[in-house]
Amino acid sequence: MLDKIQIVLVGVSHPGNIGAAARAMKTMGLSHLRLVQPKSFPCVEATARASGADDLLVNAQVFDTFEESVQDCHLIIGTSARQRMIAWPVLTPKACAEKARTSQGKVAYVFGREQSGLTNKELDICHFVVQIPTNPTFTSLNVAAAVQILAYELRCAFDKPLNSFELSSPLDEDEIDGNFVRDPPASNEAMARFYQHLEQTLIDIDFLDPQKPKLLMRRLHRLFNRMQLLNSEVQILRGILTAASRKKN
Amino acid sequence: MLDKIQIVLVGVSHPGNIGAAARAMKTMGLSHLRLVQPKSFPCVEATARASGADDLLVNAQVFDTFEESVQDCHLIIGTSARQRMIAWPVLTPKACAEKARTSQGKVAYVFGREQSGLTNKELDICHFVVQIPTNPTFTSLNVAAAVQILAYELRCAFDKPLNSFELSSPLDEDEIDGNFVRDPPASNEAMARFYQHLEQTLIDIDFLDPQKPKLLMRRLHRLFNRMQLLNSEVQILRGILTAASRKKN
Repeated sequence: MLDKIQIVLVGVSHPGNIGAAARAMKTMGLSHLRLVQPKSFPCVEATARASGADDLLVNAQVFDTFEESVQDCHLIIGTSARQRMIAWPVLTPKACAEKARTSQGKVAYVFGREQSGLTNKELDICHFVVQIPTNPTFTSLNVAAAVQILAYELRCAFDKPLNSFELSSPLDEDEIDGNFVRDPPASNEAMARFYQHLEQTLIDIDFLDPQKPKLLMRRLHRLFNRMQLLNSEVQILRGILTAASRKKN
Repeated sequence: MLDKIQIVLVGVSHPGNIGAAARAMKTMGLSHLRLVQPKSFPCVEATARASGADDLLVNAQVFDTFEESVQDCHLIIGTSARQRMIAWPVLTPKACAEKARTSQGKVAYVFGREQSGLTNKELDICHFVVQIPTNPTFTSLNVAAAVQILAYELRCAFDKPLNSFELSSPLDEDEIDGNFVRDPPASNEAMARFYQHLEQTLIDIDFLDPQKPKLLMRRLHRLFNRMQLLNSEVQILRGILTAASRKKN
């Protein structure tokens, strides 16, 4: 699916930025790089900064004009850091990725020159403009960094399974990998037994006054509930409680 | 609000990456950079790549150990690209930014060495690990690019207004009710003392073999770190440990 995304760099002057952009693309699973009038390409500096993503440089297409570079694209998204007098429809990176995901045909993300960005004439060719939110007093985003952020949002949008570990409950790496085997969270019943065991142990070690256990036990409930213990963790904790009680005798 | 975020780079070997990270930070409105054993700093290459963000380099704090660098932080988030045998609670960049937004006190985002990342020992100090979704066949994200993505998600999250009910630390009903007499989260230092106390007690009650404490203590670290204990809770737990040890004698 990400295969439909074309990253178009217009008039980049530092070849290092081309390499860094290729690396940024590849980490996010993008592979189609198009260059419009690069100042210097191919170039060892680009290859060095690509750092293993040089296959994207080898396959990069070079164009003389911006128009040609996006001729086969159905959705063309320009990037802009500046506020402009004439407004284009401006999208957030996330909204933009969603549009790219649901659109058909090839999608171009177009990045302008390091110093001056895209011209108004170039932006006129774009269907939308995406603006990365930046510090208003320092908007100087490197072009490869901009590629990185937009490619990241594309990956998040296109890769729903990866997104699904958006949660605060503890997961094993294996679960992220997709094998939802292993260490299940403790059931409510297991937690109830754990709290009984905890209360009894606290009485055994003279920490809890059995006459008025309420407040302390509530605090401990809150504390351990918050953790969303795994079964294996409940077993460890109960092992500790058993050891602590045993010392009494 | 973004002012509470500390970006901690551990053992970076290429000074250019430090500069690029500073630039990435500043574009997103972050300003606090901490360096642990940088191979070369200050360095002209860092300043060149900072490209206008050199104020962050001038103000960067340099530390000898990772522990020192995060001592005053209440929420410590490690970054990891690798799949690991022992699991930490893993968050997406977005979930992580949300946690940072709603947490109290300083928040550290920790980035490891270019080649090898963070060690397991360093990750053990972290409350959470954030993983940037990447192309499984090319996970080689540059450290400054990783800073850029996480800083971008922070900016997106912090742009939203915060209301007082969203504070993620567990609050008592009466605290929510408006008596913000707060129970502060335990500092890293307090947690370190707690873990020492826990380990000694487990030895005292014959639960832990002092010859090979490693795996169990790591699991317990992970379990209690996940909770982000309040100071008062650490006091309760240490009270329990003291009572348990006393039983021994």
